[in-house]
Amino acid sequence: MSTPPVRKPLLPLDVALTQLLGALADRVPATELVSTFDADGRVLAQEVVSALQVPPQDNSSMDGYALRVSDLAAGLALTVSQRIAAGASGAPLEAGTVARIFTGAPIPPGADAVVMQEDCTEVPASEAFGGRAAILVNVQPQSGQWIRCQGEDVTLGHAVLRAGQRLGPAALGMAASVGMAQLQVARRPRVALFSTGDELVMPGQVAPEHMAPGAIYNSNRFFLASLLRRMGCDVTDLGIVPDQLDATVAALRGAAQAHDVILTSGGVSVGEEDHIKPAVQALGTLDLWQIAIKPGKPFAHGRIGAAHFIGLPGNPVSSFMTFLLRLQGVADVALPQQTLRADFAWPRADKRQEFLRVRRNAAGGLDLFPNQSSGVLSSTVWGDGFVDNPASQTIALGDLVRFVSFKELLA
Amino acid sequence: MSTPPVRKPLLPLDVALTQLLGALADRVPATELVSTFDADGRVLAQEVVSALQVPPQDNSSMDGYALRVSDLAAGLALTVSQRIAAGASGAPLEAGTVARIFTGAPIPPGADAVVMQEDCTEVPASEAFGGRAAILVNVQPQSGQWIRCQGEDVTLGHAVLRAGQRLGPAALGMAASVGMAQLQVARRPRVALFSTGDELVMPGQVAPEHMAPGAIYNSNRFFLASLLRRMGCDVTDLGIVPDQLDATVAALRGAAQAHDVILTSGGVSVGEEDHIKPAVQALGTLDLWQIAIKPGKPFAHGRIGAAHFIGLPGNPVSSFMTFLLRLQGVADVALPQQTLRADFAWPRADKRQEFLRVRRNAAGGLDLFPNQSSGVLSSTVWGDGFVDNPASQTIALGDLVRFVSFKELLA
Repeated sequence: MSTPPVRKPLLPLDVALTQLLGALADRVPATELVSTFDADGRVLAQEVVSALQVPPQDNSSMDGYALRVSDLAAGLALTVSQRIAAGASGAPLEAGTVARIFTGAPIPPGADAVVMQEDCTEVPASEAFGGRAAILVNVQPQSGQWIRCQGEDVTLGHAVLRAGQRLGPAALGMAASVGMAQLQVARRPRVALFSTGDELVMPGQVAPEHMAPGAIYNSNRFFLASLLRRMGCDVTDLGIVPDQLDATVAALRGAAQAHDVILTSGGVSVGEEDHIKPAVQALGTLDLWQIAIKPGKPFAHGRIGAAHFIGLPGNPVSSFMTFLLRLQGVADVALPQQTLRADFAWPRADKRQEFLRVRRNAAGGLDLFPNQSSGVLSSTVWGDGFVDNPASQTIALGDLVRFVSFKELLA
Repeated sequence: MSTPPVRKPLLPLDVALTQLLGALADRVPATELVSTFDADGRVLAQEVVSALQVPPQDNSSMDGYALRVSDLAAGLALTVSQRIAAGASGAPLEAGTVARIFTGAPIPPGADAVVMQEDCTEVPASEAFGGRAAILVNVQPQSGQWIRCQGEDVTLGHAVLRAGQRLGPAALGMAASVGMAQLQVARRPRVALFSTGDELVMPGQVAPEHMAPGAIYNSNRFFLASLLRRMGCDVTDLGIVPDQLDATVAALRGAAQAHDVILTSGGVSVGEEDHIKPAVQALGTLDLWQIAIKPGKPFAHGRIGAAHFIGLPGNPVSSFMTFLLRLQGVADVALPQQTLRADFAWPRADKRQEFLRVRRNAAGGLDLFPNQSSGVLSSTVWGDGFVDNPASQTIALGDLVRFVSFKELLA
């Protein structure tokens, strides 16, 4: 009688994550210098310290007139003594006069407020004002109004962006505003993606009505490729590898040459049909982890030369969940979670940490996707995130729970 | 005495938005057929109806044994009568036997549960079982366990994706799972982006320490270009146009030839220094709207030939806010807002709808960015969204408010 397979204890997610990140600890990411214009989505590998003040000096946030509030008196017209455009610089403001000023133009020394032109009545140039134009101010301005102060946005010497930060539109605008034309960023990870399984068919190869019994379309590959690209990876698609040991070894050996990560969505199981496990073991090392989460239990990490091998289970939603784990590991940031109200009950506690597919409702709470079984890609289209429910915990209607938004993960 | 400029009433945001979308009502977006593999971020222009069931038949979600629950009895070994791999199809299950089965493989007719191999003890082939192997089942399975049902994910004839939907990784996986190798999507909008303002300097052109008084780096351009690309646009960067009428007319005329949208981040004001307004009016038509939102009041929409002209104010955060308006209009979806608790007070109501820059805190509430003045690009880096506060409304500590996440907008 053969012995049953050894049953390892399920590993809590945070323990597995720490182990996975440990495998990356020895690796200093290669970096490259790219144009700030092309750095969206890249991971910053330098600190960005501002060498200037933003704005560089006090300036007007309106088209209008710069003046001294103390010069105003009811019915009194004030001479326009100068005109300051954006990019120009003003002279000290003569007492009892105003400066015509435009949005972004520097506040002249002596002025302490800007009045919008819509709040003034213009008086044409006349002898009465020494041949100059004048204005009547129709409102009572407050000191400091419509003035953007020097350094209000960024102070000289302040670190505006940190290394390890993922760059988005606002960060790029910030880098540009302090004069950075190029940024040092991590090189894109080169990821080889392949699927295994003789039941898999590529869309377009066979029409739905001619699909053989048991055949299914390869959807994981489309899902993962776009996820990987959103994460800033260069993706090489190796296609579907036949369910044979030699073909699997050849595919892995080739992929390991020129990639940082090899990802299989076919899963790594202890099943007899699975050639991934012996193939990775023949070429390098492999750890198989049973993780105490639901869905998404099986997970594999190995090394083939310098390349990391990651085995995701074949099931679409499980791939998504374990992929998030990897995603989180690489970015080294916590999941963007928030506390929201469950508008459902989850009375059956599981010994594993559970990821429940949910959607936010108009009342600010969370609705549960009716079918939480593992094979439901539709839930990811239907829903907008998941509840991260700790092991052995039930949820009562109205409880506050940890919610993670899909869109925030992908942004 | 000259008359003051006519002061138009401020337009509520939803009214302005309706008007802006009205300008797009006559336009049927051009479409193109792209590979599903390359369709991430594109807007779907067709309905996707499933021509098959997903999964195609009941199948196993585990490696193990398929059996009839009613065949089980304590201590009774069951013969392994067949072996079903993924992609194969099983024969009807003989009474009193089990089928060796692998993840994804079809459940044989007659079986009503799968038992994980870890829950079985294997008995080698022997005379006692007619020369076949057998197993002892060490658990009491429930009917239906580890079986994914036919059509559980997608039912034949069900519309899995709708026209007008923005495609993401999950939607692409869904399209692939029903066999779609190509998808009809809207053609990418061709957007020309330019800035105006003699005070603007491109990063890299002048070092921070050599910046002239009043000069500032052009940051809007970097911000907007990456936002536009994330929205699926083809962006042409026309650079900084000099503050001269003839140069502005020439730039607009050229851009209108080959673009759907011309976007200027320099703003359109009623100021004397601004040449955009007369340039657009010379070439086409222009509407200038004062919108009752704060920040982000000035907004311009015009037509030059077939191209739409959009004028965003020069101020970075204001651009961001009014840009969201455009973003929302094109996508024809509501902002992804949620109801969250304000962990701050906002005691001064404004007559305009306000957008308050905030960040979510660990307690599930919202913290307010200390400086809400309009020129603060840092707030967008610091914060993770904004509160959409209706006109004339104060916020008390603990009030529920409408929150919009930046990351969700950009995903």
